[in-house]
Amino acid sequence: MTQIIRVGIVGYGNLGRGVEKAIKQNPDFELKAVFSRRDPSSVSSEAKAVHMSDLDSYKDEIDVLILCGGSATDLPEQVPALAGKFHTVDSFDTHANIPAFYDSVDAAAREGGKVSVISTGWDPGLFSLSRLIAESILPEGNEYTFWGKGVSQGHSDAIRRVNGVKNGVQYTIPREEAVNRVRSGENPELSTREKHLRECYIVLEEGADQKAIEREIQEMPNYFADYDTVVHFISEEELKQNHSAMPHGGTVLRSGITGDNNKQIIEFGLTLDSNPEFTASVLVAYARAAYRLGQAGDQGAKTVFDIPYGLLSPKSPEQLRKELL
Amino acid sequence: MTQIIRVGIVGYGNLGRGVEKAIKQNPDFELKAVFSRRDPSSVSSEAKAVHMSDLDSYKDEIDVLILCGGSATDLPEQVPALAGKFHTVDSFDTHANIPAFYDSVDAAAREGGKVSVISTGWDPGLFSLSRLIAESILPEGNEYTFWGKGVSQGHSDAIRRVNGVKNGVQYTIPREEAVNRVRSGENPELSTREKHLRECYIVLEEGADQKAIEREIQEMPNYFADYDTVVHFISEEELKQNHSAMPHGGTVLRSGITGDNNKQIIEFGLTLDSNPEFTASVLVAYARAAYRLGQAGDQGAKTVFDIPYGLLSPKSPEQLRKELL
Repeated sequence: MTQIIRVGIVGYGNLGRGVEKAIKQNPDFELKAVFSRRDPSSVSSEAKAVHMSDLDSYKDEIDVLILCGGSATDLPEQVPALAGKFHTVDSFDTHANIPAFYDSVDAAAREGGKVSVISTGWDPGLFSLSRLIAESILPEGNEYTFWGKGVSQGHSDAIRRVNGVKNGVQYTIPREEAVNRVRSGENPELSTREKHLRECYIVLEEGADQKAIEREIQEMPNYFADYDTVVHFISEEELKQNHSAMPHGGTVLRSGITGDNNKQIIEFGLTLDSNPEFTASVLVAYARAAYRLGQAGDQGAKTVFDIPYGLLSPKSPEQLRKELL
Repeated sequence: MTQIIRVGIVGYGNLGRGVEKAIKQNPDFELKAVFSRRDPSSVSSEAKAVHMSDLDSYKDEIDVLILCGGSATDLPEQVPALAGKFHTVDSFDTHANIPAFYDSVDAAAREGGKVSVISTGWDPGLFSLSRLIAESILPEGNEYTFWGKGVSQGHSDAIRRVNGVKNGVQYTIPREEAVNRVRSGENPELSTREKHLRECYIVLEEGADQKAIEREIQEMPNYFADYDTVVHFISEEELKQNHSAMPHGGTVLRSGITGDNNKQIIEFGLTLDSNPEFTASVLVAYARAAYRLGQAGDQGAKTVFDIPYGLLSPKSPEQLRKELL
């Protein structure tokens, strides 16, 4: 029987709740406590809720902390502060800041002799792994990532900041035609506009100017100006009923050439009903790896690139070779 | 600049020729020699051809041997015999015999202080990795593997052994309808017949009985009896012109559930114009990993499950974090 891995969740938003659910699907894990900056009595977790300020007193009761805060302000502060005290796993996803984040977490983790798996989930995470192995196998080729269909939190926030918008959700949609051109081995040059569509569902404030708001969204630099954007105006009830789920997914394709111009296509895709629950499930699998690396005496920051797949499974190496190879 | 990895190829069939081509696409490799049981003067390689019996004299000139023989008789004999002398990589693919093969290679490699990466390629190999990570992330779910469209060597051999058949090629074809049912998250129970079709292109001997041969193929136990099999009779010229390529590919899907019954689908797919060239490209990437593990002082048999993706790429860990994560 494998050792039970004792886990703490830090942050109890959609992702933290997803981790709580994922742990129930993995009998080699035990959830010890949920840590939050909120008053513990207001946290609706099934597991014991504890104020963040008491985290240190759980050092001997928790093997791995799963950090479920946001990448903008929570994780850059929390992970380096905690990585010296606990093995940690996070989903830090600000791609441009990963190298600096890695360095600061690595220093803290090494000082405490702990393992910190950073930036896991699906992008960064599974998509990154796909890009790496595909490029290593097919060095002559092109890589294409399509995201969606799914809700983009950043773009939804952007439309909600527009004056006169009461509420709204934005979907990123890959263009089927572009995906199929890549799948055919055509190796196309694709503009931003050709790869993705954007679709917005908006609830207006009383008396807002529909035409003006549609134009403001469609012309918003960085977020929408480079895309074809469709804007729908709907009622608050309709938004709640049809657009509360958090689906997402996407496809990473590499189209390459070997030998005498033979086309070779590698494709990895996700179709997710719940983006946060899936990311949470990835975090839990990597928490298992973090624990095992720690048990083996390893330390420092790790990314998905540093971790053999065998460590993600509760099965033994013998069982994996027999059943899955 | 990365170190140049000096390689020897053992066996010069389709796979060995594929490795020779793949090495040209990877500037951190140098092909030292091709080893064959045939008279070296009859081997058409660009690199120096050497008789197998002279292999030992290359111990100091070669870092990694890439073994390109067959799984039936070549690899079970060659890999344990060579794993103590060189780092090796192979594509041993008799799934049921992998555990015993692992043990014998592991013992030999440890005795010589070398690293042997066994059973890589795409199945076993990339497909196995997909199954492992998908099952680790979505423990509640089902796995589906579809092969093709592609030429099955085993089934092509089987039809060529039928009396009255002069030549023939067999394609394994996944049923689109079954793939789409899985993609939709339906989690179907699929029979063998529902998952794949088989299609044969046959050249008859002079005077052979077409009807009888068609029936014999369709009723052949293990190979065809459990499938719907379509048999086409064509001329030798048509076979040569239209059925000499070796395309293959397939799809590994996992359809799982998280939280409150949210469907999550993970899909990995390959569409290959040339099966041997692609397998060869995977072998070369894992040869890089074998070399690096050896340089780091590791030893013994390894499978794809034991090897972090970072070791497959010529890029440094810093570069990978910056560019691909």
